[in-house]
Amino acid sequence: MFLSKLDSISNALKLISDNQKLTEVEEIPIVEAHKRVLAEDIISFHDSPPFDKSAMDGFAVIAKDTFGASQSNPKTLKIIDSIGAGDFSDKSLTNEKAILIATGAPIPKGANAVLMKEFTTKNRDELTIYSQVTPGENVSPKSEDIKKGEKILSKNTFIRYQEMGLIASAGYDSVVVFKKPKVKLIVTGNELVDPTKEEIDKAKIINSNKYTIKAMAEDSGAIIQTTYVGDSFKEVKEAILDASNDYDVIITTGGTAISEGDVVLDVVDDIGEILFHGVSIRPGKPIGAGIVNEKMIFTFSGQPVAAMSQFDIFARKYLFEMQGRHFDFHITKRQSQLKIPSSLGRTDFVRAVSDDNYAKHVLNRGSGIIRSMVEANSYIIIDENDEGYQKGDIVDVIFFDSLLW
Amino acid sequence: MFLSKLDSISNALKLISDNQKLTEVEEIPIVEAHKRVLAEDIISFHDSPPFDKSAMDGFAVIAKDTFGASQSNPKTLKIIDSIGAGDFSDKSLTNEKAILIATGAPIPKGANAVLMKEFTTKNRDELTIYSQVTPGENVSPKSEDIKKGEKILSKNTFIRYQEMGLIASAGYDSVVVFKKPKVKLIVTGNELVDPTKEEIDKAKIINSNKYTIKAMAEDSGAIIQTTYVGDSFKEVKEAILDASNDYDVIITTGGTAISEGDVVLDVVDDIGEILFHGVSIRPGKPIGAGIVNEKMIFTFSGQPVAAMSQFDIFARKYLFEMQGRHFDFHITKRQSQLKIPSSLGRTDFVRAVSDDNYAKHVLNRGSGIIRSMVEANSYIIIDENDEGYQKGDIVDVIFFDSLLW
Repeated sequence: MFLSKLDSISNALKLISDNQKLTEVEEIPIVEAHKRVLAEDIISFHDSPPFDKSAMDGFAVIAKDTFGASQSNPKTLKIIDSIGAGDFSDKSLTNEKAILIATGAPIPKGANAVLMKEFTTKNRDELTIYSQVTPGENVSPKSEDIKKGEKILSKNTFIRYQEMGLIASAGYDSVVVFKKPKVKLIVTGNELVDPTKEEIDKAKIINSNKYTIKAMAEDSGAIIQTTYVGDSFKEVKEAILDASNDYDVIITTGGTAISEGDVVLDVVDDIGEILFHGVSIRPGKPIGAGIVNEKMIFTFSGQPVAAMSQFDIFARKYLFEMQGRHFDFHITKRQSQLKIPSSLGRTDFVRAVSDDNYAKHVLNRGSGIIRSMVEANSYIIIDENDEGYQKGDIVDVIFFDSLLW
Repeated sequence: MFLSKLDSISNALKLISDNQKLTEVEEIPIVEAHKRVLAEDIISFHDSPPFDKSAMDGFAVIAKDTFGASQSNPKTLKIIDSIGAGDFSDKSLTNEKAILIATGAPIPKGANAVLMKEFTTKNRDELTIYSQVTPGENVSPKSEDIKKGEKILSKNTFIRYQEMGLIASAGYDSVVVFKKPKVKLIVTGNELVDPTKEEIDKAKIINSNKYTIKAMAEDSGAIIQTTYVGDSFKEVKEAILDASNDYDVIITTGGTAISEGDVVLDVVDDIGEILFHGVSIRPGKPIGAGIVNEKMIFTFSGQPVAAMSQFDIFARKYLFEMQGRHFDFHITKRQSQLKIPSSLGRTDFVRAVSDDNYAKHVLNRGSGIIRSMVEANSYIIIDENDEGYQKGDIVDVIFFDSLLW
């Protein structure tokens, strides 16, 4: 009978994890590497900075020469050269001398500090200084950020904007990353039509899953293509077989056809292997997963909210880890502002509005109520061993934002 | 003198906010609307669901007919029709009758509940039921999600995946959104070279800002084009004037040329208006902003960490709000694991590693140390009225992830 024996969520997740695959790797220009995942360690080709560098516009000096200088007790030095950004000076600094220097320029030989321009006045080559500096002041020492030959980032690092800067500084103009997984979304359901402002035929319903699931896949670093098929075994089988040749992951939505059970799972059973079908969660109980042609297939509900939750619970981690990026739910603690009933033996993902202190679940939470996902910013998780919570109890919360790529 | 009079951060932010602009709007297909911002209210063209809909595969029944049915006391009904997904039945249900119904199909006239298939057996048109249902059970009532004519989303809403689903369900196949701002990044600095694994000329430094600032602009919903110019007044002026014709926002990095002050600000002063130059923050003190040809220009430091912080503090909000999306720092409280010194009169943005309870600042935090941004996941904010914190003090923390588009 349909879903008569439900898997536990932990068993279902383990079955998916046991079948985790990685995408292949590819080398791409560093400029395109934002939000990709490193498939190589980054070993620096350079020191950064490559030399002792001035951190200010000012004068390279020998610090000792400035000791005691103040507004009331100025000292004078002789300017012997100037160094612009991108330039250098071959001159060596000796006592009582100074070299005009730009931010970013190499400190000349002999100097060990930079005095900021605003603490000086100058008259031709005579420099009057009104402040002292300590050795090393306003100097960024060679290799203070990166040492040549050092491993500065490891394989499997997610490349944010700051990692891009570090990789570039290490001398990489291209980088080896995991490929984006290619996902095929197969939307099934004879009742579905595209969005239209015109009146819709009796018994037809606008399909929203093709938009939400596409956006969620993109929020997981994947590339997604969508196709639509009717509720027949033949159509679904052809679509899944096709997809299993050209895509890394297949996701279906809907597919409950009258009198014949879930046609999508029948197809998976016919041409591949069902890992599980039916998990003790709410929403999203009818979730299935399987392997077809060595590719993972997730079979989601047609109900929009169930499908979104199924993506979050089962597909997101798989897509992240396929790209070498570790994923775990980031569970935080909040105080529940309402009583929440639940059933023993079932894990609930309750849509909620949470802030830094509190969580308040959205009241209308049928699995077709998209507005409940729109109102919410988080899930309250109710473990299968809990019968719900009282108002004021501390609950487990996962913010939607913490799930994004 | 250079930066001798520093603006307060609040005054600088107010000057930017006073010059806030909005992008124009455009109509795009709903499938492309993910992570855009609504420039119109969404008024639904339809009820959703458009009819009382079956939430299960099962049998449409009159609930009263099932009362008392159980495993030990089965009842029988007569099956008079079947409704697949996308189909409907013109038959009216009367007592002791049932209609086979698919998930998503319209409830036939007369019926008021759906009994799940697994609680039944059938023999031709004779249905044996082993469970009872209450009126409304397994029925998603017409318009429970969306009512036709109702405003379901307001202008200025950020479109996440769930909003895409809601907008589609309301009948919109296209949607009016704010255009992405076009940003021109002008990288200045005679010392800069592109990343290379080969040895670099003396006095030259790899430019990383063009990668980090590009990625940060993308993380703010913007489109960015980058150009490089040398440190001359003429080159910088031409680049800024050009950019002010074709772009919504200009960002420069670097531009401190020896003996002539900051050439970029000299250009802004020459062809436009300087809003401020020099703000009492760390890192990022030399930040400037101005208006050229009615376009906002931000002048960032060449120092990579200073430039990233300047983006976060000054440019991010401007770019968000340009697209109609409200932005405020989301400041949370954490316990500091280390003592942090600071100076009165200066606001510090201290790179830190924070979790759900604690914040620990990164020790090496020169404004050129990109690794300090790579190690960090957050800023600890030290207000200008604070002289720093002791170990164990509660501090203000902004997570980097909370800044993203």
